[in-house]
Amino acid sequence: SSLKIGLIPADGIGKEVIPAARAAIEALGSDIPKPEFYNLDAGFECFASTGTALPEETVEALQDSHCALFGAVSSPITKVTGYSSPIVALRKKLDLYANVRPVVSVAENAQEKPRVDLVVVRENTECLYVKQETITSTESGKEARATRLITERASRRIGRLAFELALGRPRQLVTIIHKSNVLSVTDGLFRETIRAVPRFAENGRYDNIQIEEQIVDSAVYRLFREPQIYDVMVAPNLYGDIISDAAAALVGSLGLVPSINAGDNFVMGEPVHGSAPDIAGRGIANPLASIRSAALMLRHLGYLNGADRLDKAVDGVIREGQVLTPDLGGSSKTQEVLDAVLKKI
Amino acid sequence: SSLKIGLIPADGIGKEVIPAARAAIEALGSDIPKPEFYNLDAGFECFASTGTALPEETVEALQDSHCALFGAVSSPITKVTGYSSPIVALRKKLDLYANVRPVVSVAENAQEKPRVDLVVVRENTECLYVKQETITSTESGKEARATRLITERASRRIGRLAFELALGRPRQLVTIIHKSNVLSVTDGLFRETIRAVPRFAENGRYDNIQIEEQIVDSAVYRLFREPQIYDVMVAPNLYGDIISDAAAALVGSLGLVPSINAGDNFVMGEPVHGSAPDIAGRGIANPLASIRSAALMLRHLGYLNGADRLDKAVDGVIREGQVLTPDLGGSSKTQEVLDAVLKKI
Ligand SMILES: CC(C)[C@H](C(=O)O)[C@@H](O)C(=O)O
Ligand SMILES: CC(C)[C@H](C(=O)O)[C@@H](O)C(=O)O
Repeated sequence: SSLKIGLIPADGIGKEVIPAARAAIEALGSDIPKPEFYNLDAGFECFASTGTALPEETVEALQDSHCALFGAVSSPITKVTGYSSPIVALRKKLDLYANVRPVVSVAENAQEKPRVDLVVVRENTECLYVKQETITSTESGKEARATRLITERASRRIGRLAFELALGRPRQLVTIIHKSNVLSVTDGLFRETIRAVPRFAENGRYDNIQIEEQIVDSAVYRLFREPQIYDVMVAPNLYGDIISDAAAALVGSLGLVPSINAGDNFVMGEPVHGSAPDIAGRGIANPLASIRSAALMLRHLGYLNGADRLDKAVDGVIREGQVLTPDLGGSSKTQEVLDAVLKKI
Repeated sequence: SSLKIGLIPADGIGKEVIPAARAAIEALGSDIPKPEFYNLDAGFECFASTGTALPEETVEALQDSHCALFGAVSSPITKVTGYSSPIVALRKKLDLYANVRPVVSVAENAQEKPRVDLVVVRENTECLYVKQETITSTESGKEARATRLITERASRRIGRLAFELALGRPRQLVTIIHKSNVLSVTDGLFRETIRAVPRFAENGRYDNIQIEEQIVDSAVYRLFREPQIYDVMVAPNLYGDIISDAAAALVGSLGLVPSINAGDNFVMGEPVHGSAPDIAGRGIANPLASIRSAALMLRHLGYLNGADRLDKAVDGVIREGQVLTPDLGGSSKTQEVLDAVLKKI
């Protein structure tokens, strides 16, 4: 049987990097079941032309697929009536509760910081992303409020996933990121629930995993000063969003960092970079984060050989340093980088 | 008449760096009115021994002073009944609505990133720091909620202060940090209110200030990649907390970054670093952030000569690089660094 993969390029450079990831997957041949691709619509351009940023058909097609790749959305900064971020909505609709973002430095060169090898495990469905906001007018002007939701259930499942990932890594360390010195109730619940995960695990499964914790502001500071102290970082939604971008700065470019949005029944790869309107349409977007996201997606589905071949090809291209897009200091085009990867697959 | 200065060393290295700042102020002689110092209690140790982290006498003494210097608190990570962060409380009680954190690189050397010269203007009274949290039990476990408050009034006054600061700087640029692509109502209000500040200013006071904006995750990424794009960064409370620590990583050490908590009638200097329990009591804490905080406080009060002398002495010590604490790669003691500063004042 085939592997059904939904493709949602969405906006900007999403339209350039997702086709590259598709080509890389196609090059894998018999390492994976024959892929069947479905091109699906979503995003701000989709909203502008159809009135919805996430058509019902896209969600239905995904529910019929095994997995998906998402490009990037151009979120408007000002409120646009009727528009709501399709990536935030997809994470919730498909219950993709974990956003897993490995940040690893490849090349060993003078400009580079100490070797980075960490993975950010970001809770993907709650925190301020529940988007429950209100606004009222008072005598002294407008007052707006947003709700930050942290549940035991969501904290436990993201915690389990973090420990599970740590099991497969040499360092066996989980660092909980929070701000419970200020948010003692919400971040307190996040922190305690994750600390309790090993206690409820069967057969002492996580007993050898070391647990550390860091206050989010200090975590970002130390991330830049001593990234080697981190292995698996588990964080509520917003801190995870910020920390994964911060970590990306350490390895040279956002154009290198992949992610998966994973639930119990579905996985969606997504490069961590945005739609990059400044370079969209010029054929110079870095396709490596998307190809790595495809690898991460395949790995999550259990296709380890296919995933390894994609990752090794990408690592090889970076290490050789001959064919790189401008974000990495090169002058190659998306297509040239893709060709270099395909040659190595 | 004299200059009444409250001193609140609080916990950990606060007890080592605040006396150093005091000595530096005393060395200024006639550049400032004769200083009168009041040693005031607050912090976690104070809580442990007296049952309150912020005694009423401390607040009253501050209300009788012209200004203050605050050290650092050891916030417990787990909820301690009855304990609440005294620094968060002081900011609110004295309505110190602006947390101003200049981050500037001094020495020009190989390890250093591109020159950094920015100031983080952090709203200091609301956002998630209103600490309105609730927790309930449901069938699927506990659910905790926190309120994030953003008001037009607080956004306007922090915006005004950001523009006012930008007026005095060569770049004349204000960058608004927000996440209004997700928090369209709360961060939308923050962003729009600040954008509107120049429109309501008298005589086109801010007409030449350039306004930019950045989504917080991308702001942190770019802070590390191209810190030179920033001049004045204005942010809601929590983003400002994270961004100022991130910026500190760029200039070599948190031990260099000062701040003031400023309101319309009071100013309190505070080093950005924490209480550093790991090095407390060893006499090796970096006093420079506290001395710079004293300078910032004096500058805010209009004592420009005194402030300049402190800043120049600190810059000189850093540039010479002979007498530095371990956080900066040196092996000098707090007292030795202080002596080096005093010699230059
Ligand atoms: C586009 C935006 C809604 C999104 C987020 O905040 O989750 C992005 O920053 C990301 O990290 O995937
Ligand atoms: C100690 C803590 C409450 C405080 C804050 O979050 O404001 C600290 O991180 C700071 O930046 O001054």
